[in-house]
Amino acid sequence: ADRARLLVTCRDQPGIVGAVGTFLARAGANVHSLAQHSTAPEGGTFFQRTEFRLPGLAAARAQLEADFTEQVARPYGMDFTLHEERHPKRVAVLVSKTDHCVLDLLWRNRRGELPMTVAMVISNHPDLADDVRSFGVPFFHVPATRDNREQAEERMLELLRGNVDLVVLARYMQIITPAFLDGVGCPLINIHHSFLPAFIGAAPYAKAKGRGVKLVGATAHYVTADLDEGPIIEQDVVRVGHQHTAADLARLGADVERAVLSRAVRWHLEDRVARHGNTTVVL
Amino acid sequence: ADRARLLVTCRDQPGIVGAVGTFLARAGANVHSLAQHSTAPEGGTFFQRTEFRLPGLAAARAQLEADFTEQVARPYGMDFTLHEERHPKRVAVLVSKTDHCVLDLLWRNRRGELPMTVAMVISNHPDLADDVRSFGVPFFHVPATRDNREQAEERMLELLRGNVDLVVLARYMQIITPAFLDGVGCPLINIHHSFLPAFIGAAPYAKAKGRGVKLVGATAHYVTADLDEGPIIEQDVVRVGHQHTAADLARLGADVERAVLSRAVRWHLEDRVARHGNTTVVL
Amino acid sequence: ADRARLLVTCRDQPGIVGAVGTFLARAGANVHSLAQHSTAPEGGTFFQRTEFRLPGLAAARAQLEADFTEQVARPYGMDFTLHEERHPKRVAVLVSKTDHCVLDLLWRNRRGELPMTVAMVISNHPDLADDVRSFGVPFFHVPATRDNREQAEERMLELLRGNVDLVVLARYMQIITPAFLDGVGCPLINIHHSFLPAFIGAAPYAKAKGRGVKLVGATAHYVTADLDEGPIIEQDVVRVGHQHTAADLARLGADVERAVLSRAVRWHLEDRVARHGNTTVVL
Amino acid sequence: ADRARLLVTCRDQPGIVGAVGTFLARAGANVHSLAQHSTAPEGGTFFQRTEFRLPGLAAARAQLEADFTEQVARPYGMDFTLHEERHPKRVAVLVSKTDHCVLDLLWRNRRGELPMTVAMVISNHPDLADDVRSFGVPFFHVPATRDNREQAEERMLELLRGNVDLVVLARYMQIITPAFLDGVGCPLINIHHSFLPAFIGAAPYAKAKGRGVKLVGATAHYVTADLDEGPIIEQDVVRVGHQHTAADLARLGADVERAVLSRAVRWHLEDRVARHGNTTVVL
Repeated sequence: ADRARLLVTCRDQPGIVGAVGTFLARAGANVHSLAQHSTAPEGGTFFQRTEFRLPGLAAARAQLEADFTEQVARPYGMDFTLHEERHPKRVAVLVSKTDHCVLDLLWRNRRGELPMTVAMVISNHPDLADDVRSFGVPFFHVPATRDNREQAEERMLELLRGNVDLVVLARYMQIITPAFLDGVGCPLINIHHSFLPAFIGAAPYAKAKGRGVKLVGATAHYVTADLDEGPIIEQDVVRVGHQHTAADLARLGADVERAVLSRAVRWHLEDRVARHGNTTVVL
Repeated sequence: ADRARLLVTCRDQPGIVGAVGTFLARAGANVHSLAQHSTAPEGGTFFQRTEFRLPGLAAARAQLEADFTEQVARPYGMDFTLHEERHPKRVAVLVSKTDHCVLDLLWRNRRGELPMTVAMVISNHPDLADDVRSFGVPFFHVPATRDNREQAEERMLELLRGNVDLVVLARYMQIITPAFLDGVGCPLINIHHSFLPAFIGAAPYAKAKGRGVKLVGATAHYVTADLDEGPIIEQDVVRVGHQHTAADLARLGADVERAVLSRAVRWHLEDRVARHGNTTVVL
Repeated sequence: ADRARLLVTCRDQPGIVGAVGTFLARAGANVHSLAQHSTAPEGGTFFQRTEFRLPGLAAARAQLEADFTEQVARPYGMDFTLHEERHPKRVAVLVSKTDHCVLDLLWRNRRGELPMTVAMVISNHPDLADDVRSFGVPFFHVPATRDNREQAEERMLELLRGNVDLVVLARYMQIITPAFLDGVGCPLINIHHSFLPAFIGAAPYAKAKGRGVKLVGATAHYVTADLDEGPIIEQDVVRVGHQHTAADLARLGADVERAVLSRAVRWHLEDRVARHGNTTVVL
Repeated sequence: ADRARLLVTCRDQPGIVGAVGTFLARAGANVHSLAQHSTAPEGGTFFQRTEFRLPGLAAARAQLEADFTEQVARPYGMDFTLHEERHPKRVAVLVSKTDHCVLDLLWRNRRGELPMTVAMVISNHPDLADDVRSFGVPFFHVPATRDNREQAEERMLELLRGNVDLVVLARYMQIITPAFLDGVGCPLINIHHSFLPAFIGAAPYAKAKGRGVKLVGATAHYVTADLDEGPIIEQDVVRVGHQHTAADLARLGADVERAVLSRAVRWHLEDRVARHGNTTVVL
């Protein structure tokens, strides 16, 4: 209950690790793990994730943040966020008809592998309602087509706004508009059913079959205005051969998709993923 | 000494496997392994590789091929090639300055893992002469620049023509012209230092670092007039992260490159790789 | 509907492939794929799996088998089995409390990835009843403890005998007696939560943590009287490190377990797995 | 030239990271990377590796160590070691007849991938003398048999003592006695040609073939008095199947062996590997 993660980023400079460590020790925190990264030996950007336990954190948090701001963050020109474990992130999952990614997320959540509260699943098709609700998770059907995209996104924003800290596109086959990205006010993670940057766009497994590749893969990334071009969080591949049809590639690829998406979501939920330009640092 | 590989391809139709098998059995051959593939359940293209031992094959080969043509190949509209193990392929390796791929090929050859005779190594730089010659392999230095490409290719063709059955581009950083492809009269295998179709062209590891990928890979493919677009024989990847510099990616990628190229060359030398359009069937 | 798999095994000898192929062609079958293996170049045991389509197979099957016996199987001293695709295998899954393996099997079956009819799930705990029945699969609770093993196995045999072609132990944590193996009359596949032969028996992840391994794995194997020692069908591993607790190893291992078990079951259902002594040939 | 690694270990307690970080910052060091691990959330053992640059380190080192001892190490009950990059470790490689591991180490060293000085290669066979010396590395032939083990080890100790910081057993097929371990006075890394704890001892690939495994692997570990039982540094596997002979397994395994050994040696040379009981922490 008293565990938290502190994420900081700033221009790299001497003394940061010591300053953060000393501050936490004086505050009575016990550091459980620490990971840091600097993007260059000199003149880089610095990232640090510190996991700690501090008895009485809930009550002391406001003062702790004020003190940290004054004593560490301001002197070092640092951005920071503090995440308490007792507040798991609230997550919405957007899906179409395909179930492998969303079911894996819901199952891992039930099993205790993903520290999140799944606030809702939204789909443009009704097919997965029963499966989702059997996990005790609300399911909303918001039909979306090329013609009603604006209204559909508005309806989804009404459901999402203020209610979630993360939106996961678990094979949601609709285009996301910049207006939606602006309006939703939280990060979005997408699973791209290809090993980006290969086979961008639709029907990647058919394209992969046509190209005769010997591996197919999947990519989990943050969604940005550039479709399929956001910062990559995780990727993986599976070996295929001439004997596999495009349908086999899709089947084998689905296993990679659900594994890659679940890992990426887990790392995000544990506050391990920092963005740096169009890339990520996974601490 | 009496072992051989028979490769056949034709329009898929009933009875092929039986016809080939019965022919070989009547000829006195003992089949050691057989692999086949049809590109579609109905109306596809059929490929078969049969490895067999036939005592006295060397003397009987001409008659065997004539009989096979008449009794099997013609009736089924079949193309076939017969490769005796006692004739390992003659191979030339083209390199620039980088040694990891060529040394792995030479070392595996010495170790008995690659059934080939390395006829020569040609390089546009003199750097690797000693390393290559320590394996007892001739090394030829043919300087090649943007300005003398025509003469350089002509000089290489003089060395290669009639002397080799395969050319391996083991990180040969020069462009290969269609004239060279036409003139050399044998297949070329290239190692592309990327997981095609991603990061085509120069500096793929720098591109990969810029894109923030979590895997880097390599692709071995036959060379066609479309640079980097020929049929893929083998691919593999290695996991990387934010902590790796572009130089680290190149270092880790080099391990994948040499492994992928060695596997692709081995399969080609064992007559396992059939081309089908712009893809391969690896039997 | 007219597709089938023919599996044959016999002492290796010239002419087998041709004889089988010619027989099938004369019977009017179109071979879709063929895989064979001989355990030694000379004097080995021969295995072949042939997938074919024969219009009207259902009606012609008895005659086909009689003809094959007389014309091919008897002359070559061959054992064979013929499996029609229209008869998917009937499968029982035995579980305890852990859900990851059984849910993955049921989900893949629903998705069309595993050609089987799940006749029942039997558990010595009631916990998974709802999850299993949501797939439309019967769930039977047969309490089993060290003290009532005999009665429990007898009760299970009553449920299973004559009703299933395969029993899958999907993390069924009870010992299986030789009497049960004899009585059930069909193969059993077990998932061993370790990379056999390492860490045989209970608590393999705790053992693996204590040994400081850098990989943990799982093994799917046929069950024989020697516990954990039966023929291995499939194995895989996942990378771990010092930062992982024994609980993390169990979590990561569970992903490997379900993947390995699903692949092994799939290959068995497709009649790809032949036993050879205490090993398997996966065609 | 001014780069160094500081490794510390002590009982876990609040304030360590801050104390080390603050000390280094005050000393004028710029931290390039930091990794730490505690073996338990409370009451564990703490390990930290800090990579830093400190202008003028060579001249200031003695004072720095004295100050660190007094201000940090003693108060926290800490063991520490400081390694300057300008002093690469001196390494001896022990081999028998097999070349794949030693050649990979020598080649990576020449290529700049392994920060070490290879002081010598010692072999109980003369076979690899030319290959080793072509890298400019001294080769000593010390015949070793069951009968002269004592004298052979004494001869090797004369060569090694005081001259090396690490001994790598790169497929050295002789038993190492506790007397040798005591006498050599530096760590030894061995490559075990199996995925420990499976197939301990001789002929692991033949054992693996007999067991019908679907993966073969290799393990790099520190050598202790318990043969094959020392702390594991790195492991990896490669997929195999029924079609592979025991010789194929050995060939495929050799690729894994050289990769695993090279990674383990690299991590040791970079001072990343701490021992904890019979396990390792790789920072």
